[in-house]
Amino acid sequence: MSREEIIQRISQDPFACFLGIELLELGQGYSKVSMIVGEQMLNFHGIPHGGALFSLADAAFAAASNSHGQTAVALSVGINYLAAVPVGTRLYAEATEESLGRRTALYRLAVTTEDNTLVALAHGTVYRKKEEWLAP
Amino acid sequence: MSREEIIQRISQDPFACFLGIELLELGQGYSKVSMIVGEQMLNFHGIPHGGALFSLADAAFAAASNSHGQTAVALSVGINYLAAVPVGTRLYAEATEESLGRRTALYRLAVTTEDNTLVALAHGTVYRKKEEWLAP
Amino acid sequence: MSREEIIQRISQDPFACFLGIELLELGQGYSKVSMIVGEQMLNFHGIPHGGALFSLADAAFAAASNSHGQTAVALSVGINYLAAVPVGTRLYAEATEESLGRRTALYRLAVTTEDNTLVALAHGTVYRKKEEWLAP
Amino acid sequence: MSREEIIQRISQDPFACFLGIELLELGQGYSKVSMIVGEQMLNFHGIPHGGALFSLADAAFAAASNSHGQTAVALSVGINYLAAVPVGTRLYAEATEESLGRRTALYRLAVTTEDNTLVALAHGTVYRKKEEWLAP
Repeated sequence: MSREEIIQRISQDPFACFLGIELLELGQGYSKVSMIVGEQMLNFHGIPHGGALFSLADAAFAAASNSHGQTAVALSVGINYLAAVPVGTRLYAEATEESLGRRTALYRLAVTTEDNTLVALAHGTVYRKKEEWLAP
Repeated sequence: MSREEIIQRISQDPFACFLGIELLELGQGYSKVSMIVGEQMLNFHGIPHGGALFSLADAAFAAASNSHGQTAVALSVGINYLAAVPVGTRLYAEATEESLGRRTALYRLAVTTEDNTLVALAHGTVYRKKEEWLAP
Repeated sequence: MSREEIIQRISQDPFACFLGIELLELGQGYSKVSMIVGEQMLNFHGIPHGGALFSLADAAFAAASNSHGQTAVALSVGINYLAAVPVGTRLYAEATEESLGRRTALYRLAVTTEDNTLVALAHGTVYRKKEEWLAP
Repeated sequence: MSREEIIQRISQDPFACFLGIELLELGQGYSKVSMIVGEQMLNFHGIPHGGALFSLADAAFAAASNSHGQTAVALSVGINYLAAVPVGTRLYAEATEESLGRRTALYRLAVTTEDNTLVALAHGTVYRKKEEWLAP
């Protein structure tokens, strides 16, 4: 299984596509994704819905944790909301590996604006299965 | 501001509508919402995206925490993923108030199937602002 | 390995003993422990230290998650602080099983006073190893 | 209120002293503390108790979040356990400010060994009260 195949599969993630999330970078235990906050992502207070911000962080999480080829499934995520942004804002989420164990791994997920304001910060733990998620 | 107005405003939440999330019940510090897992909510492993499950829990969270009339904004949420479900599954999320303080409040958010299997469990903290979010 | 042996081993947990934590009940996936808040458990604001409250919840967590005989080690815990109590207060922590999987399990950890005020609420995930922690 | 007074008060934190936790550094929104894992800090598996590791992280959290002079009280903390260490190990916990808002703030709490192995990683949110915790 080549890096190109992994990138292609992650780029076709249905929910990420539904939200307009793009995969910008993928490395070993690393990823960067982006999304523009649309009108349909607001909540009833008129600010971005927590679920939309979380989904962006989660897309980065899934990409980085599955970047090694081994199937990784999320066990838990904790997210902190730090700032609200207006509709039309381009957001980025960057996932970096805090720890990689045999069975579990931990990722830092930072959601920021173009000028690097921290909008949300999350940490997620995956369980690493024995199988590879793309047939070699 | 009447209960009907609160229900109407929450029911028109743009992101919840975008995901097909319906508000089934709203009480003081309580809510129940529902959503069917669509094809567009899967991730690249072919199971429901963590962001879609979180968004359902978050919709219940927002409804319950804003049910008192006072504006509540999410500070942090921790979610645990417990089971995967197939496309077409109807999911429910129920938010119950664990604690209601003057400035903060804590909610339990349980995502379940029709037969009550726990799919995800989350807890969320809100900051309670001084203003009412619907003009009286 | 008998239930009595498990109870004996858990009751001799060094850190729990150091803090005066007593095991009151142990069931399958369940435990209840207790501790009196001592002067040495305060922080520099003169209220119980977050670490002391957490440790009580954690003692309940360890007991309940290891109650099945299979070795369970903590992966992550999220705790919410809800109320402060004065020195001399007897606190209880009750651990209940939210979910028991083959490799992971999730527990609710509630710290309360005698009159059932919720002082702290936590949720913890364990990784369940293959071996039994007490030789059969 | 001078920095010396803040350092003195934090250094006399009863629970931190009880566990042998030392304040090594204190800056604006920053702190570093240290502790040696004693026999009394083990759990019934013979490894450091989650509560002991948490308490070290929490001591750093309290110091950093109260370093501005304004009273800060913990709302929630999420901790991930990453490695076990033997008795006698000197551990460090470093708290850095991820975000400082008017009413809340978020801190990263990293517990490491002398050779910089990440033993536990936590994030904590405080509520910032209006009063200063040391009379000016």
